Amino acid sequence: MRKYALGLDFGTLSVRALIADIETGQEAASVSMDYPHGVMDVALPDGTNLPPEWALQHPEDYLLCLRSVIPQAIRQTGVHAEDIVGVGVDGTSCTMIATDGDGTPLCLLPGFAGEKHAWPKLWKHHAAQSQADRMTERAVSRGESFIAPYGGKISSEWLFPKIWQTLEEAPDVYDAADRFVDLADWVVSLLTGERVYSACLMGYKAFWNSHDGYPSEDFFGSLDPKLRHVVRDKLRGNVLPVCGRAGFVTEGAARLTGLAPGTPVAVATADAHAALSAANVTQPGRMLMIMGTSTVHLAIGGDGHAVPGICGVHSAGVYPGVPVYEAGQCCVGDHFNWFVRTLMPGDYSREAEARGMDAHQLLTEKAAALKPGQSGLLALDWWNGNRSILNDSGLSGLILGMSLTTRPEEIYRALIEATAFGTRMIIENFESHGVPVCELCACGGISGKNRFMMQLYADALQRPIRLARNPQSSALGSAIMGALAAGSNNGGYDDYREAASHMGGVQSEIYVPNPVAGAVYDKLYAEYRRLHDFFGRGGSNVMKALKNIQSHTLI
Amino acid sequence: MRKYALGLDFGTLSVRALIADIETGQEAASVSMDYPHGVMDVALPDGTNLPPEWALQHPEDYLLCLRSVIPQAIRQTGVHAEDIVGVGVDGTSCTMIATDGDGTPLCLLPGFAGEKHAWPKLWKHHAAQSQADRMTERAVSRGESFIAPYGGKISSEWLFPKIWQTLEEAPDVYDAADRFVDLADWVVSLLTGERVYSACLMGYKAFWNSHDGYPSEDFFGSLDPKLRHVVRDKLRGNVLPVCGRAGFVTEGAARLTGLAPGTPVAVATADAHAALSAANVTQPGRMLMIMGTSTVHLAIGGDGHAVPGICGVHSAGVYPGVPVYEAGQCCVGDHFNWFVRTLMPGDYSREAEARGMDAHQLLTEKAAALKPGQSGLLALDWWNGNRSILNDSGLSGLILGMSLTTRPEEIYRALIEATAFGTRMIIENFESHGVPVCELCACGGISGKNRFMMQLYADALQRPIRLARNPQSSALGSAIMGALAAGSNNGGYDDYREAASHMGGVQSEIYVPNPVAGAVYDKLYAEYRRLHDFFGRGGSNVMKALKNIQSHTLI
Repeated sequence: MRKYALGLDFGTLSVRALIADIETGQEAASVSMDYPHGVMDVALPDGTNLPPEWALQHPEDYLLCLRSVIPQAIRQTGVHAEDIVGVGVDGTSCTMIATDGDGTPLCLLPGFAGEKHAWPKLWKHHAAQSQADRMTERAVSRGESFIAPYGGKISSEWLFPKIWQTLEEAPDVYDAADRFVDLADWVVSLLTGERVYSACLMGYKAFWNSHDGYPSEDFFGSLDPKLRHVVRDKLRGNVLPVCGRAGFVTEGAARLTGLAPGTPVAVATADAHAALSAANVTQPGRMLMIMGTSTVHLAIGGDGHAVPGICGVHSAGVYPGVPVYEAGQCCVGDHFNWFVRTLMPGDYSREAEARGMDAHQLLTEKAAALKPGQSGLLALDWWNGNRSILNDSGLSGLILGMSLTTRPEEIYRALIEATAFGTRMIIENFESHGVPVCELCACGGISGKNRFMMQLYADALQRPIRLARNPQSSALGSAIMGALAAGSNNGGYDDYREAASHMGGVQSEIYVPNPVAGAVYDKLYAEYRRLHDFFGRGGSNVMKALKNIQSHTLI
Repeated sequence: MRKYALGLDFGTLSVRALIADIETGQEAASVSMDYPHGVMDVALPDGTNLPPEWALQHPEDYLLCLRSVIPQAIRQTGVHAEDIVGVGVDGTSCTMIATDGDGTPLCLLPGFAGEKHAWPKLWKHHAAQSQADRMTERAVSRGESFIAPYGGKISSEWLFPKIWQTLEEAPDVYDAADRFVDLADWVVSLLTGERVYSACLMGYKAFWNSHDGYPSEDFFGSLDPKLRHVVRDKLRGNVLPVCGRAGFVTEGAARLTGLAPGTPVAVATADAHAALSAANVTQPGRMLMIMGTSTVHLAIGGDGHAVPGICGVHSAGVYPGVPVYEAGQCCVGDHFNWFVRTLMPGDYSREAEARGMDAHQLLTEKAAALKPGQSGLLALDWWNGNRSILNDSGLSGLILGMSLTTRPEEIYRALIEATAFGTRMIIENFESHGVPVCELCACGGISGKNRFMMQLYADALQRPIRLARNPQSSALGSAIMGALAAGSNNGGYDDYREAASHMGGVQSEIYVPNPVAGAVYDKLYAEYRRLHDFFGRGGSNVMKALKNIQSHTLI
């Protein structure tokens, strides 16, 4: 009898349930559902307006989707719930939920519906920037060692800036919160009744490591005396290693989802990190690029390398005892979408429509007809600032080399090339700090949709690239975590390498670097690198000066 | 009885005849006609293909237009030809014509129709770049003093590079040529039978000055022994001062044009320089901007200032004994046309059509709704290289400061601002080298069409700007030259100041600088200047590196 594992992937706009064959990883069912409320960035359900930079979600959306997609997926497979031996959960992170003692999000309690701080703060809620900045400053001035693995800078997307914002702006919510918990951990507690935290989520988003735990009470107390005991009081629960079990599906959760009571549930992970096992990326020297509107880079390396400008590194965040270095580009597909939204010429739109293509397909076709270097253009991919390796949101976009014959597809291609060069900066930064990157694997929306771009990346990075076999890599990765939660005694796996090699994997096609194109990209990249360092490392302050001038015009 | 003067303006695509009242300068008639062959940059009339960078014209077009527009203009006024007391001629320059002993362009002779070098080389024929570069190099290495007033660099648009190219590539054409002559001088000789050269044309385009004449035979001989006697053999004829008479309309020319035989004809000028008197710009401290696809800046200053990066300075080129400093931006309206042609979004095109506006009107309206600095963008206006003050065609365009919310009209405005900052560089360069610029006057296509842009220039340059009264400033300026050719005895003028103050002038409206906007532009300009110097003065070689990479892809 075949056995299966279920992966649950809580994305930004939808949730997906994927059921995979334990033996082969083959997808038996895949069902997704959009959150009815999507991202709430204008107003609360009761009409309360939200300030700029806010991004909330509705916890009933999570519950509704959960109740819907799991039974649907089980029906699709035609198997019994008992044949699903394990469940894994991943989610966007850090999407922070303040709960009461029963695990109920505070916003669902009487009296809190109109209090914006009682609602789940989505990962891209950026309104805690002030707290993040002050936290960085304090950590640096105190010489805190916990900050080093995070590239020396704290993101407003992470857990503690969001908690601190809640304390500062809504102390009653802070006081009423029994716990603050990341979305995927919250789903796990919902399924299992266990109040545990994931080493992946706490590791990459809350400065936790297995050696030192969280930052010290002294540090938190130095930010605000009321924050001194935040870990003791608001993060109660063990931090559990990944690739293991958090608990078992309760009777109540079984009724809710159609899963069998007692089904093992894995420790949660972040969505990007879940994809690693689905691509069977488990060995040092390999890197996975999760490519979409932005790109996350996860590289497996040795222990103890201090790599500047990365998002974080953890040895217990993805696989036990395996350091996974995370870097990121905060704007990839977003560049191309900006171009199409803003500067797509009318005649190109008409041509695309006549030929039944979308704008990206047409621009890609035209860009693909050009040779590397032919346009004379070079761009810096900083339309949304730079995450790795400069970690500077004050940077902005640049295009250079225009002439009176410059065409739209040349600009479009220059934007693609710029993101490839940005990735090359990240890779070379890894390599020059002791984390070699020999093999590349890609997943995420763009990787499966744009063959031209993947070949361009192979050429510009001068490394072969393979694609993850299943495009729903996060959901499949969570299913693999489910198989590991089950263990071999229950038809699953005990070892992450074994699980990943059976259930994960890559497509057979390889994007092989073209050395002729590579030689041209070497020259273009050398120029990119010079501009990158000049504008990004203090040679010119013009981008910040312009933002400063701009901010004064908006007063 | 009212008296009139006729101005003939030979532009790039058309010729204009303008008849003006001698007393007031008021336009009595204005007729223009397009050249049937336009610019020949692909093939000769017989189908012979032209290489890249070539740009020729058909001399029969000049004759045809001449025969057509003058009688039409005379008819329009309803006056007798005898009431036209003088004629002035200006033309694009240097547009070089090789003629036989009768003044007939060689291309019209049997056996030469298929020889591309026998055709008039239009000012923007850029195929003599190699000759221009070698000429600059030789002049510099020999320490030739003639080059200093031309910013230290010889343009491929000028007379001697075009002659040298003819010698090198078609020695039979060189040998067959009785004379090489600039377009406006050729028209004057056609009207008068006099083989004379204009101090304006030879001064700004052929290194002539009243003190030293042309460069020495030693210099020309050092380029090529066969070029040693180029001046003696191929430029026979006196160089006459401007604002004076070249001769009188012959019987033959009278039959051709309908002018009265014996009508005085002025010494020719270049089209841009002709505009100066039409705007009544005659005093030191004043500058005229002739704004179109490119901009020419003519500033009146004192004698003997060495201003780097200008196109040239002459004391006998526009008014006798008055040093006029010429600078230029080689791409102004061309930037905005590039944007509309290349990146005008479909929805903007539809909006413009629905509202009965052209693309520039719509983008201007939207750009005008922004505040200075609001977009966070900054551009370098180098889509076609930089003429003044860097004199470097290897530079290219740059835009910086883009975010995911950047809009098309923000880019459009940044391009306008960049051209204003480029003008400010030119003005400050003049001022820091002894040529103060207190008052600005503008003419040319853009100045009359785009009020927003003129106000932006006033704000960014922090100087009031007035517009020339007659938008056909070159043609009116030539009419003024015609009145000077007539002299007061014949109903004209003897003094250029008197003629310009009667017949030329500015509109009453003044674009007054807004000091609030000016303060923001001061900040933006400081950043522009830093980028200008970094990319334009050797801080970064990236623009040339990209052109170099690009040129290798095209092999």
